[in-house]
Amino acid sequence: MSETLADIGEFDLIHRIHRVIQQEGVSSPDVVLGIGDDAASLRPRVGYELLITCDSMLEGRHYLPQHISSLDLGRRAMAVNISDIGAMGGHPRAALVSLGLRADALVADIEAMYRGFAAELNPFQASIIGGNLTKTGDAMFIDITLIGEVEPAKLVRRSTARVGDAILVTGYPGQAAAGLQLLLQSQPSEDLHEHPLVRAYHTPIPRAREGRTIACAGYVTAMIDTSDGFLGDLGHICQNSMVGAVLFQEQFPLSAELQIAAGVLARNPYDLFLRDSDDYELIITCAPEHIKLAQSVIANVSDVPVTEVGKITKPSEGIQLVLPDGTQRPLTPTGWDHFA
Amino acid sequence: MSETLADIGEFDLIHRIHRVIQQEGVSSPDVVLGIGDDAASLRPRVGYELLITCDSMLEGRHYLPQHISSLDLGRRAMAVNISDIGAMGGHPRAALVSLGLRADALVADIEAMYRGFAAELNPFQASIIGGNLTKTGDAMFIDITLIGEVEPAKLVRRSTARVGDAILVTGYPGQAAAGLQLLLQSQPSEDLHEHPLVRAYHTPIPRAREGRTIACAGYVTAMIDTSDGFLGDLGHICQNSMVGAVLFQEQFPLSAELQIAAGVLARNPYDLFLRDSDDYELIITCAPEHIKLAQSVIANVSDVPVTEVGKITKPSEGIQLVLPDGTQRPLTPTGWDHFA
Repeated sequence: MSETLADIGEFDLIHRIHRVIQQEGVSSPDVVLGIGDDAASLRPRVGYELLITCDSMLEGRHYLPQHISSLDLGRRAMAVNISDIGAMGGHPRAALVSLGLRADALVADIEAMYRGFAAELNPFQASIIGGNLTKTGDAMFIDITLIGEVEPAKLVRRSTARVGDAILVTGYPGQAAAGLQLLLQSQPSEDLHEHPLVRAYHTPIPRAREGRTIACAGYVTAMIDTSDGFLGDLGHICQNSMVGAVLFQEQFPLSAELQIAAGVLARNPYDLFLRDSDDYELIITCAPEHIKLAQSVIANVSDVPVTEVGKITKPSEGIQLVLPDGTQRPLTPTGWDHFA
Repeated sequence: MSETLADIGEFDLIHRIHRVIQQEGVSSPDVVLGIGDDAASLRPRVGYELLITCDSMLEGRHYLPQHISSLDLGRRAMAVNISDIGAMGGHPRAALVSLGLRADALVADIEAMYRGFAAELNPFQASIIGGNLTKTGDAMFIDITLIGEVEPAKLVRRSTARVGDAILVTGYPGQAAAGLQLLLQSQPSEDLHEHPLVRAYHTPIPRAREGRTIACAGYVTAMIDTSDGFLGDLGHICQNSMVGAVLFQEQFPLSAELQIAAGVLARNPYDLFLRDSDDYELIITCAPEHIKLAQSVIANVSDVPVTEVGKITKPSEGIQLVLPDGTQRPLTPTGWDHFA
């Protein structure tokens, strides 16, 4: 199993990839033409708009090959794109995968990566319809374009939060970042792959079903995924909606694992929740009278908790954090600046 | 003008890019949501299928930064994608641009690259609707996904050539490769930027208008662009259509510049035509009785020559080259294997 790309060449690799996709992926009747021509072709459904997103993973920067399996890497790279479609209220349909690969990459690893892509796409009946292969001399990269669809009336933007709305969040932001820190601080002899926080980092569960469900139910005014960290993405909502926000620290959902890890890492767990990235949870704003309804429609399709953590305020107030003793302190949403 | 990405940060860079796109790009009424949310949104036109392609350019591998301006690099990266849409008979509509950038990259260069993207998209009323920015430590990369549209009856595949069809080609394949070789062999003091072969390499003109026109006219059985070299892509047609081909060397269109350059480079000009890549011409197959009609409908929209160079034969014959003296020799289409 030590066959490399240099051994089999580009066109054989394409055949191998094609085979994995056919064996492990679902096929959609709307795909007119998949891999194997100048372009793929897809039949749009009447009454739907297209959603298109793309996201890259660069070796050494967005993933550490010594820590993540190729299967998980494929899952993660696809999940972060699925998350973006879900955060618009949409449904994923088709993906194009562009890879930068070294000639010494193992064919078995590439095949495993495609199994990972399929594992994330299959629950949505979405498939890989095309892509590109490039030889790279140094860091490998995975660049995925994901196409989804949404009815125009269901599309949820980040720019439409209203003063007085509640701020909800799914899951436990901060977990993925804590998992990464545990990995980086681990000894070579430690196997942390099954640690729940490391799983949260390696194979985040995109909340696309939850986003789609709440968008269809209509109990949502704005939505975004937390790829830039909770505070960074709340900042995007505030900036684009021209509003402010107040957050109640006591209400932040912190998992038991995160609290333990924060101790080990000598980090403030609330800071991990607010500032660290790599989770793909949803921030949802809704009218206060819709909180319970929003929580219950999501509970119908998912067991992920949906927690109220704050309120949308006037823009002049910026983003404020209320501590348990009632004091406030302003927060500056810097987000995850890739060039900082 | 020595401002770098590290100086302004990711979010400021996004603003700068947005400004270039707004100032230099066209805006399409079908773009519901452009840059600035989790995903872009596009309204498909009723009666059209989507075409989706992606192609990467990696610094040092697909372009040499010391030789190409950022404007031309942007043009070229977009042109190769436009070519793929045209080769399906489609019309480009919207692009997503994913960049891997070093922190020391000049902001002015990135802006120039986006002006290059717009220069190629504008004639098609197509626009940039999204993308991604990633920091890279070493080679920069540009990965573009281009979305086009085509009426189902007009879509032209590479798999539908028929025995007896004529083989036509647009333009002068081999020119781009000769331009690259001239650049690589040039002295630092030589400025070859305006050499026609170097222009052919740096800013190939995609034949999307020609491909769309011939697809709409219906005088085409199969089509592909020559991104893998003429022979490599004819090989794709043969393999996918399960046919063979005979080529008449005397009929190959060789520009005067290519013939001169072949002498300088000590290369066989027919070999440059057949085997070298980086042109984005079209190979078109059509019924013999449609050759003149095909040439004349393309002449209505373009001054690019369309030359008959061979015939589609039975698959058992493989690909044969007929020399001026009537002798035949078999050709093996290896194409451009990125991992060879």
